[in-house]
Amino acid sequence: MEIIVLRLCHRLPRDERISTHVALVARAFGADSLIYTGQHDSGLEESVKRICERWGGKTSSGNFSVSYEKSPRSAIRKMKKQGFAAVHLTMYGIPLQEKLKKMKANEKLLLIVGSGQVPKEIYGLADFNISVTNQPHSEVAALAIILDRLMQGKELSGFDFKGKLRIRPSEKGKEFY
Amino acid sequence: MEIIVLRLCHRLPRDERISTHVALVARAFGADSLIYTGQHDSGLEESVKRICERWGGKTSSGNFSVSYEKSPRSAIRKMKKQGFAAVHLTMYGIPLQEKLKKMKANEKLLLIVGSGQVPKEIYGLADFNISVTNQPHSEVAALAIILDRLMQGKELSGFDFKGKLRIRPSEKGKEFY
Repeated sequence: MEIIVLRLCHRLPRDERISTHVALVARAFGADSLIYTGQHDSGLEESVKRICERWGGKTSSGNFSVSYEKSPRSAIRKMKKQGFAAVHLTMYGIPLQEKLKKMKANEKLLLIVGSGQVPKEIYGLADFNISVTNQPHSEVAALAIILDRLMQGKELSGFDFKGKLRIRPSEKGKEFY
Repeated sequence: MEIIVLRLCHRLPRDERISTHVALVARAFGADSLIYTGQHDSGLEESVKRICERWGGKTSSGNFSVSYEKSPRSAIRKMKKQGFAAVHLTMYGIPLQEKLKKMKANEKLLLIVGSGQVPKEIYGLADFNISVTNQPHSEVAALAIILDRLMQGKELSGFDFKGKLRIRPSEKGKEFY
């Protein structure tokens, strides 16, 4: 399954760190790439690139990458034309567990996470509006949980990113190998 | 099981939003309260309080609350004296799935999430140093995943927070009841 994460409406400096967390969760939990809209941010792109250089970036479709699109609507339309089912994560949506099987029937998924107020049009463009609990919390957490369910927990055993840095799990300290 | 989340080294303005996400994930995913150390931040406390007023705050031990402690070390020592097992989330730790059963054998868990560089002493004070993947990503995501595993996914079906605002899950829009 190919998975692309679309981060909407990135705002500087407000979303600097949250969007970075979104990108790193996307990579660590098995998505193939991140597209973001809103303000262009070479700092975000650079910090993800640096992580990939050190920790690796191997995904099913190549190296994990970040790219910018100006318009959320045309980004979604373009990906849908390429065969992606659009999954918008929103606390107002249908609970994840009720739609998981249907989502997994798709070969390509575009996981959309908003920031601030998401335009109503996005709800209409999405093939699925999905909630990870119906409580306010965090797009970072919602993305982690949906990727965890799509990967069936396999991300916890560790994908091989073929990075220069690799951790040897340790009871008390920090070990690399 | 009683679960308290301890957020270390909150820095202003850098961690403003990430710590809020940590708090909201703690609440939505079934933790009982949040303690934070670092810089005191009445803004953080106020925004969580506002969320609880509107969305409810019912947990196993009362209403979800946020409190401040000056020293991380004494906060951890105090909670351990009260019978909490201290679980430090770190990318260097032992994979979550290998220790889940052992963690669940405890009646009370203190889940510690860092920010920036965590002092080495914390690794020693913790009863468990646990990783959610050994890749760099986000304390928000790590917290969501460990709570999800501790709750056995029950948080997705929705705890009843007895809030004024309640969402009726919807395919395309925003509905309350």
